[in-house]
Amino acid sequence: MKNFKEMIAKAKNIENKPRIAIACPYDKNILEALGRIQREGIGDVILLGDRDKVDSIKEKYNIEMDPVDFIKSESDIQALKKSYAMVIEGQADIIMKGMVQTKDFMRTILSNKKFMKNKLLTHTVAFDIPSRDKLLFVTDPSIMTEPTLDQKKVILDNAVELLQYLGIEEPKVAIISSVEVPNEAIKSSMDGSELMELQKKDSIWNAQVYGPLAIDNAVSKEAAKLKNINSEVAGNADLLLMPNLDAGNIFCKGLVYIGEFDTGGIVMGAHKPIVLTSRSAGVDERFNSICIACVLAEKMK
Amino acid sequence: MKNFKEMIAKAKNIENKPRIAIACPYDKNILEALGRIQREGIGDVILLGDRDKVDSIKEKYNIEMDPVDFIKSESDIQALKKSYAMVIEGQADIIMKGMVQTKDFMRTILSNKKFMKNKLLTHTVAFDIPSRDKLLFVTDPSIMTEPTLDQKKVILDNAVELLQYLGIEEPKVAIISSVEVPNEAIKSSMDGSELMELQKKDSIWNAQVYGPLAIDNAVSKEAAKLKNINSEVAGNADLLLMPNLDAGNIFCKGLVYIGEFDTGGIVMGAHKPIVLTSRSAGVDERFNSICIACVLAEKMK
Repeated sequence: MKNFKEMIAKAKNIENKPRIAIACPYDKNILEALGRIQREGIGDVILLGDRDKVDSIKEKYNIEMDPVDFIKSESDIQALKKSYAMVIEGQADIIMKGMVQTKDFMRTILSNKKFMKNKLLTHTVAFDIPSRDKLLFVTDPSIMTEPTLDQKKVILDNAVELLQYLGIEEPKVAIISSVEVPNEAIKSSMDGSELMELQKKDSIWNAQVYGPLAIDNAVSKEAAKLKNINSEVAGNADLLLMPNLDAGNIFCKGLVYIGEFDTGGIVMGAHKPIVLTSRSAGVDERFNSICIACVLAEKMK
Repeated sequence: MKNFKEMIAKAKNIENKPRIAIACPYDKNILEALGRIQREGIGDVILLGDRDKVDSIKEKYNIEMDPVDFIKSESDIQALKKSYAMVIEGQADIIMKGMVQTKDFMRTILSNKKFMKNKLLTHTVAFDIPSRDKLLFVTDPSIMTEPTLDQKKVILDNAVELLQYLGIEEPKVAIISSVEVPNEAIKSSMDGSELMELQKKDSIWNAQVYGPLAIDNAVSKEAAKLKNINSEVAGNADLLLMPNLDAGNIFCKGLVYIGEFDTGGIVMGAHKPIVLTSRSAGVDERFNSICIACVLAEKMK
């Protein structure tokens, strides 16, 4: 997967348009992204909540957004619960977070154990870096605070599954730390070598796994060569597993708010794709995220 | 300080050229950066080590680099110790790490307690981001592994001192975390609010301190507004204090190796500037770092 252009083209090519359910879409950027999804024929949108609120935002910002259905609800929580019921019952293929609290959204999703496919819900984001020949995926910058080694295994399960759904058959996975040599004072470096050893022994993932690696050696072939790191992953990673929430969040927000790279992400771990963009996400980030979800929805059927 | 162009101009304007002592400069990028420092009249260079090794690199890569002095040494460690002695005794103004092990370099520096000005040696790096109207400083991406709250205070002491030497009178300091609201599960967020409270109570630093902040709210005024953060620091930070080594290192290497932003850094905490660039640093990063050191050397006299 080279870039978001390719992702969008893939999303447009899906025969049965996925249906996206979103409660409380009371936000200019959300409605603009959903309008673009409808106009480009990528997916069908079902809105839930207060019609007047949506109409006043559409009017104020002159947004074209016409859902295939609008389900009125008494309250935000009721709208959220209904959007979730639609996904569980097969009336929608994707659930997206609107202007509800993240903790309410997550609590709703986690209320039905049958909806879970894996042990944890985890976030993976992609970056479109013009100087690279493929998307760069990063996990988990949003959900898991201080993952244990076992939790990192599940984060990898989810992310590797995502990359494979997107057609990256044997992803190159770099377990990121601040150093390349295991050092007991730096937990992420120990996790890096343990995850690599696990993979060597048991081939848990259909992926090439190498760690620990610092960012320079994960993305720059020249830097990897300078440090004599002999691995297909070094300098050429598809996916970066971050040490914890702080490192992942700070790294990803650096690429978005300072590097100004195009991004989009998805929550994996359930039987259907979950779009969980942050309040400050722009139109493109939301649009890209929904496109990823649409490509996945087809595979997850 | 707008960008490195301004930093370089400032370095060129120093009346008494600083003298830079470097042991074992057996590296193409080091010699090229030092050559540029000499040619642009910014500083005088004293090389220590094996002359034949230096000459063969100069010849191989056609590098112009003529030190004001070349001191031959029996061994790398002897050259390192001599370079340190020169700085302590006032024959040099700046010490720079050459191709010696970082641990040997640090051990040598720490061997003389009188050379220390503060309690810790810590690293601060600067980034030249064309879309910003000033340099972005980040600390500490290289030395302190898991700083305690007390150690973070010293990291801030060192970094704020650096910014003031560079003419930023009352720096805007963002204590970075992955969240903006203190959360006991995320140590960096608790440290953020504690450091801000400390500053409110005792005005430890001549700086505006705000925390915790996530990256978006530290550098983007729009994102800060969306989250209703009411602070002069939000969206306009000069300096980012990172949670720990992993987060700082991964963030900074992301900006260098993916964002491709121009960078340079300096180690503070001693009575003279210490240049400690990593093995993979390019010519520009080394040149910029030496320029910062030259501007500081003048102030530290």
